Amino acid sequence: MTADRIEALRAIWAERMPITTALGVAAVSESGSLLTVNLPLTPNRNHKGTVFAGSLSAAATLTGWSALWLMARAEGLNPHIVLQDASIKYLAPAKGDVKVVCAVPDEATRSRLLAVYHRRGRVRTRLEVSILDAEEREVVRFEGRYVVHRLDLFKD
Amino acid sequence: MTADRIEALRAIWAERMPITTALGVAAVSESGSLLTVNLPLTPNRNHKGTVFAGSLSAAATLTGWSALWLMARAEGLNPHIVLQDASIKYLAPAKGDVKVVCAVPDEATRSRLLAVYHRRGRVRTRLEVSILDAEEREVVRFEGRYVVHRLDLFKD
Repeated sequence: MTADRIEALRAIWAERMPITTALGVAAVSESGSLLTVNLPLTPNRNHKGTVFAGSLSAAATLTGWSALWLMARAEGLNPHIVLQDASIKYLAPAKGDVKVVCAVPDEATRSRLLAVYHRRGRVRTRLEVSILDAEEREVVRFEGRYVVHRLDLFKD
Repeated sequence: MTADRIEALRAIWAERMPITTALGVAAVSESGSLLTVNLPLTPNRNHKGTVFAGSLSAAATLTGWSALWLMARAEGLNPHIVLQDASIKYLAPAKGDVKVVCAVPDEATRSRLLAVYHRRGRVRTRLEVSILDAEEREVVRFEGRYVVHRLDLFKD
């Protein structure tokens, strides 16, 4: 069930990734093909009273990773998921709490990714993450290239 | 004096950017043309026991911003400094505490930046930030394009 997977994701954040507690990214919802993570201004404010750019990049990184983690779990998989590279554009200052939104890969993309993953033990994919302010204005656009490895094949 | 500026930078981090306390980036040193910020593993660990990619991007973002802030202060300026866009490559997992290193603009670059800043009230510059592990191996390469605005000209 989706709710169970979201709960398991929250447990990883809370218990094993302590900076996520400091970022305040407690709330998360998966609706249709969108994963949404809320990032509050207060713990992430900078000296100008807007959200610190580094908190925005951290939240985007986390949200992309989480979308793939949820996708893998829905397939009964438990792979190693790492970010290989990313780019980020800051479009406007974030003056309040923001929503970090990632489109989970669609059915066709998911099937293709899974086929490659099962054949080769790893697959690479690009994810786009947008950060929206309270007026739904896009304040950040992030694109990350993630690699999903089968655990027994993972070498670093 | 450099030590005073570093102290003023630390005060901004500690008092006005609360996430920097959670990241644990208390230590910072400026030596010659290099600004170095230490980022500890423990508060930034992920469920694999390595440094979370989002903490690495946040620390790189902060270090680049800080290098420009220190440069501006050395010139007696107090501008608005914002990150416009950035790219980041993760070269290897960070298995322990890391050092985030930024080359402060050299004398010639600094003169050119200042001339543009004084003429136009704003100037854009690229900064490279590297993150090194305990063996001095580069684990992350970050490049950010920052804009330095005169405060009275800043509109968002």
